[in-house]
Amino acid sequence: MRTGITHLAIPGPTNVPEAVRQAMNVPMQDMRAPDFGDLTIGLFSDLRRVFKTANGTVILYPGSGTAAWEAAMMNTLNPGDRVLMCRKGQFSMLWARMAEQLGLEVELVDVPWGAGTPVSEFARILGNDAEGRIKAVFVTHNETATGVTSDVAAIRAVMDDVYHEALLFVDGVSSIASIDFRMDEWRVDLAVTGSQKGLMLPAGLGILAVSEKAMAASRRATLPRAYFRFEDMTAVNGDGYFPYTPPTQLFHGLRKSLDRLFEEGLENVFARHRRLAEGVRRAVHAWGYDLVAEHCKIYSDTVSAIRVPPEVDARDVIRGAYVNYNTSLGTGLGPLAGKVFRIGHLGDLNEVMCLAAISAAEMALVDAGATIDLGSGVAAAQCWYRESRQVRQVALAAE
Amino acid sequence: MRTGITHLAIPGPTNVPEAVRQAMNVPMQDMRAPDFGDLTIGLFSDLRRVFKTANGTVILYPGSGTAAWEAAMMNTLNPGDRVLMCRKGQFSMLWARMAEQLGLEVELVDVPWGAGTPVSEFARILGNDAEGRIKAVFVTHNETATGVTSDVAAIRAVMDDVYHEALLFVDGVSSIASIDFRMDEWRVDLAVTGSQKGLMLPAGLGILAVSEKAMAASRRATLPRAYFRFEDMTAVNGDGYFPYTPPTQLFHGLRKSLDRLFEEGLENVFARHRRLAEGVRRAVHAWGYDLVAEHCKIYSDTVSAIRVPPEVDARDVIRGAYVNYNTSLGTGLGPLAGKVFRIGHLGDLNEVMCLAAISAAEMALVDAGATIDLGSGVAAAQCWYRESRQVRQVALAAE
Amino acid sequence: MRTGITHLAIPGPTNVPEAVRQAMNVPMQDMRAPDFGDLTIGLFSDLRRVFKTANGTVILYPGSGTAAWEAAMMNTLNPGDRVLMCRKGQFSMLWARMAEQLGLEVELVDVPWGAGTPVSEFARILGNDAEGRIKAVFVTHNETATGVTSDVAAIRAVMDDVYHEALLFVDGVSSIASIDFRMDEWRVDLAVTGSQKGLMLPAGLGILAVSEKAMAASRRATLPRAYFRFEDMTAVNGDGYFPYTPPTQLFHGLRKSLDRLFEEGLENVFARHRRLAEGVRRAVHAWGYDLVAEHCKIYSDTVSAIRVPPEVDARDVIRGAYVNYNTSLGTGLGPLAGKVFRIGHLGDLNEVMCLAAISAAEMALVDAGATIDLGSGVAAAQCWYRESRQVRQVALAAE
Amino acid sequence: MRTGITHLAIPGPTNVPEAVRQAMNVPMQDMRAPDFGDLTIGLFSDLRRVFKTANGTVILYPGSGTAAWEAAMMNTLNPGDRVLMCRKGQFSMLWARMAEQLGLEVELVDVPWGAGTPVSEFARILGNDAEGRIKAVFVTHNETATGVTSDVAAIRAVMDDVYHEALLFVDGVSSIASIDFRMDEWRVDLAVTGSQKGLMLPAGLGILAVSEKAMAASRRATLPRAYFRFEDMTAVNGDGYFPYTPPTQLFHGLRKSLDRLFEEGLENVFARHRRLAEGVRRAVHAWGYDLVAEHCKIYSDTVSAIRVPPEVDARDVIRGAYVNYNTSLGTGLGPLAGKVFRIGHLGDLNEVMCLAAISAAEMALVDAGATIDLGSGVAAAQCWYRESRQVRQVALAAE
Repeated sequence: MRTGITHLAIPGPTNVPEAVRQAMNVPMQDMRAPDFGDLTIGLFSDLRRVFKTANGTVILYPGSGTAAWEAAMMNTLNPGDRVLMCRKGQFSMLWARMAEQLGLEVELVDVPWGAGTPVSEFARILGNDAEGRIKAVFVTHNETATGVTSDVAAIRAVMDDVYHEALLFVDGVSSIASIDFRMDEWRVDLAVTGSQKGLMLPAGLGILAVSEKAMAASRRATLPRAYFRFEDMTAVNGDGYFPYTPPTQLFHGLRKSLDRLFEEGLENVFARHRRLAEGVRRAVHAWGYDLVAEHCKIYSDTVSAIRVPPEVDARDVIRGAYVNYNTSLGTGLGPLAGKVFRIGHLGDLNEVMCLAAISAAEMALVDAGATIDLGSGVAAAQCWYRESRQVRQVALAAE
Repeated sequence: MRTGITHLAIPGPTNVPEAVRQAMNVPMQDMRAPDFGDLTIGLFSDLRRVFKTANGTVILYPGSGTAAWEAAMMNTLNPGDRVLMCRKGQFSMLWARMAEQLGLEVELVDVPWGAGTPVSEFARILGNDAEGRIKAVFVTHNETATGVTSDVAAIRAVMDDVYHEALLFVDGVSSIASIDFRMDEWRVDLAVTGSQKGLMLPAGLGILAVSEKAMAASRRATLPRAYFRFEDMTAVNGDGYFPYTPPTQLFHGLRKSLDRLFEEGLENVFARHRRLAEGVRRAVHAWGYDLVAEHCKIYSDTVSAIRVPPEVDARDVIRGAYVNYNTSLGTGLGPLAGKVFRIGHLGDLNEVMCLAAISAAEMALVDAGATIDLGSGVAAAQCWYRESRQVRQVALAAE
Repeated sequence: MRTGITHLAIPGPTNVPEAVRQAMNVPMQDMRAPDFGDLTIGLFSDLRRVFKTANGTVILYPGSGTAAWEAAMMNTLNPGDRVLMCRKGQFSMLWARMAEQLGLEVELVDVPWGAGTPVSEFARILGNDAEGRIKAVFVTHNETATGVTSDVAAIRAVMDDVYHEALLFVDGVSSIASIDFRMDEWRVDLAVTGSQKGLMLPAGLGILAVSEKAMAASRRATLPRAYFRFEDMTAVNGDGYFPYTPPTQLFHGLRKSLDRLFEEGLENVFARHRRLAEGVRRAVHAWGYDLVAEHCKIYSDTVSAIRVPPEVDARDVIRGAYVNYNTSLGTGLGPLAGKVFRIGHLGDLNEVMCLAAISAAEMALVDAGATIDLGSGVAAAQCWYRESRQVRQVALAAE
Repeated sequence: MRTGITHLAIPGPTNVPEAVRQAMNVPMQDMRAPDFGDLTIGLFSDLRRVFKTANGTVILYPGSGTAAWEAAMMNTLNPGDRVLMCRKGQFSMLWARMAEQLGLEVELVDVPWGAGTPVSEFARILGNDAEGRIKAVFVTHNETATGVTSDVAAIRAVMDDVYHEALLFVDGVSSIASIDFRMDEWRVDLAVTGSQKGLMLPAGLGILAVSEKAMAASRRATLPRAYFRFEDMTAVNGDGYFPYTPPTQLFHGLRKSLDRLFEEGLENVFARHRRLAEGVRRAVHAWGYDLVAEHCKIYSDTVSAIRVPPEVDARDVIRGAYVNYNTSLGTGLGPLAGKVFRIGHLGDLNEVMCLAAISAAEMALVDAGATIDLGSGVAAAQCWYRESRQVRQVALAAE
């Protein structure tokens, strides 16, 4: 029998704050009540703040982040449209597969799993597309499978360089609300996220922010859609209503998680993620292991994918951490299975929660045949958490 | 400021039982954990019992019932396929609209709102379709907008009479788990429901049961789909996993709501709905009002749509019940707006909850200009609840 | 198997508001943490507002209201002290029994169950006690067993008339936070309440407000006490701490229930109780039944004790309402058993909740052999709730 | 703003398991309902299993463990009775102070804080009391302030050696349900515990088990009591009722926590506590620090009190762990303030929760000026948790 907390160190679903859990424990209510908008209308405007967009339209789908992926495409593209995508991990791979399943023609750039979206290669392809056959450019902002953050601003810049008018789609499922994302500044047209990552909710909401350009495209787009149809949503969302029964429980939770994000301050949220992530990275370094991410400039602040040495099967580490030490680590996906485990470090988290995950990983690694010193990663992370805290407090004192 | 319970007398979302609310109050967990199937695998088999199917495949979509409507079509039909549908209320109307949006050719039979699916007209149309151009026949088992239950078995019989091979789609959103539904006996191919009605959960799960014939059709169907793709689900559901992050919170709730349904016994659940519904109907009769449903043989046991006299605006009744008496009544949808209010009587309900709704409706009716006697509907329902209870107990005693 | 809500129409524990339930669902926390006072200090000052005392000391005991009864006596009186008490119902009887058990000499005035504290008899006794042998006068503000509210101000007045210096103890368990109570104005020395009535929490807190005079008495009092010792509490309460582990869960709930009381406004809370109570009383009148309370001037606004006719056993009514109609009515206590049932109408309540209780009582009454007309009480209450609401709205409109 | 879990590493209140939190989230209910005993009667018998008594009477007080301390004395002793007590830490000191406050004559044995109840000194005193003036012998089974477990069986043995007939009182607040306790075998007469330790509930229940001998004594005892009176409880507890409003919410939680204890198995629960405690002790050893407990034979398996070196103020450690690292450590009480911090390791706990506490303590220690190596204690504990787990699994495999 299990006792105590099961430590959740996966990159999503993330830990739901107690206050959010409280807020979701509600009786059902009438989604057509005259005051229903008191709950919902503010969610749209506050999510715009999270996406950093002034005029984008936020749409909330009952569904997962994958639903929002699909909604973005089905509403704005046409059968056979050419789209530029990069396959650099499990989730970018799945998004590309989805595009094909939905009838798009995918111009696919493969890079090693561990690389970011290749800016120069995208530049080259877009530069060669003077006739504008490419209708959409897709960027996975944070590839959750590899722990790599790509440079959306750079992709926008190369699009601008060649005056390319494709729509810019961004998968921000594991970045938005945890890593800086700037929809308006980067002129992102379709930004996708889900409830179960930086928004600290259970899975169940696919969230989309749509630029005015994308909204205009949706009026001409011909891929078949009904459940995901923008216009059915936007026709009633303004008054706080929905075209079908919405998950009000999640709305109550979202209200509270947004309140928390703003209370902490978005920039502070990002800084906290960076600081907590760095502790995990120092632990990995102390073990002598490498991240999947190829370079420190693309390290993700929300998830670290950690390569184990050849004599260790990462699946044993993950299984052992769960079975023996009540700790859920993230698995290696696709070709990374057995070679990689992941530690999610996003959402409602603090230093000691990261140390707990590191300590469990250490025991499970040794159990699986690794030769690291127990406590070595913990010590490296502790050292960083102490010193970075002091710096912060000195900074505060100096204000 | 509101005090006390807001009485929820709409036809969904329905009241979530306390035990289900408790069960949903869980921390997040890893949907890839080795023991995740301990939670999920049983849900599929137990839902088959609810659908009354031995070999159907149950699929759980993060989404609303509308999502399951779409999933049913997109997976089994082809662009331009001809489908036979009947428009008899808001929800059958919306389903038909969806079919058109998704590129199907809809043979549409309009009947008055208040009628059931017209068996003889369907028989005529199907009889004239010797070449089998109609690929699917759609039946809304319980039209939530009008409180009308249609005869699915009769539709199946007329299909059989002419050896018609179309797929049979049934919208059971407001019937399944509340009104008798027999997937295998009626050879339904695609049965749709949602979490927020008879399953007594918050909205957030679109649920589909798929016959072997429909599953075979899905292997040939060409409408574009990704999020809803059957094969991605069935490839991993058998082990209890999902192709994208599932709403585990709802799964915990579903586990408990299924336990409750079976503990009460499905046939007892149906009988309870019938008995509670009859109380509401007697109240309506005592007021001298009519149901929208044209005939007592098609009265729905899950929702009653009640016509108000011309001098009363039903919107005032609904608004007044909510604002003044903390009671949510169902609104009149589409052309019924202002003319009709609805009382939902499904899910986790008992006699006194129905009496509470009736008593609130009475006050709101009089406030809105109706001339009924306060207490008259309550008395009629009380009388029925007393007498039907005694009958039951005599029956029990005789066993 | 039970389905739906069990309607709780007893005079306590009362219905806990959803927001309070949410607030109590917390993980445990360190009651010695440096910021623990952020939670607790405000509770004391806000409870003073509820007691209407500026300088009284509020003490929170883990325990029931009975614990606070005992704490009041043990801290301020001496063995063999003479105290004046009136026995007018089960709870005043139990308080008197407690006084005897604790070694006090009780001057006991018996009145019929249904009468209030007899002001003139108390005046006579106190007038005859020129030597001040009576050390304490006890008043049960609201006798929960009979639904009678006594006039504390009048008792204070007769004490003042004869310059009597006894301490004035008031049991406000079923009045405070529901019926107007004025500690300072009435110069109450020890006011007792519990968490599970007007404060809308689960049982578990005995709450006491202590005047400066009583606090001074506690420094000289010699009855043995430890758990209940004022000075151990007051020594640390000022900083928000407690001498033993406090029920932090209830503190979180109390924080929220106080917020709600002040948001509604205490005077509005009292008015709401009066209005809801009046509906119940009109139902009783419609049935042709009597309240236990002897006169309308002493009717309680928090609980009505209802006499059934001789041919009906009230225990059958209560049992039947519970077993058949999922409704908890209050029982007749002591000599009232079988003759009386009670409807509690306090706490987090609204009109339709009262109507639900009345409708259940009607069915159970008829089941038990009563000859009332079903719906008659409901109609009378509905009529009152409609008309009193309109008056209120006219008043609001006139502002 | 705090994010993430506040790690609770104090010796109570302990972490409440999720399943228990769920179970406590209930609406209020009628404590006089005919089926109320379905909830409560089993609690008494199951608590007897926890106390390991066949015929003892279990009593549940709304209150803290301190309330049960008082109830034990007030019900069984007489004013001026001589009692033998040992002062060896904050809680044994407080119990002795209570005895004096309640009018008992305390024969007090002082030992260093860190020692156990002195068996030979008790033997000497009891041996000299041939006339039986000592009416009760008190043992604090586990002194929570010092982390010392005393040998109750040995005290019983020395009582038996001299045929002493005093009642044997045991404070098992921080032992019962976590450390082996045997009421019948040791012939304990009054065993005290509370809800917020090994029973994994919020504070709010003082729990007492009373031997037949103590129950007989209660019929003759003359200390004044009412709230705590055994006979009022036992008169109605048999049917599952209570003399005043009980905290039903905690009863639902207790039901679930008992289920969990028995599912794990009491002996397994004790073994788990021992194993988790040993990890903490190895960490302390790795730091080069000492426990307050004088000898390894009296180390407590539920709490470790850890001496810091003179240059460190333990209050800084505790405050720093809380403020900077979201971790609640236990404080040094009374004369141990500043010299000691405590780690509670009881209740719903696992390895990684202990490692989290150790890692936080390490950072806070270094912040407060300690010279330990970060990670050293974590490593020692990890090593033990790995090796002790393997031993267990080898043992399991060999079965």
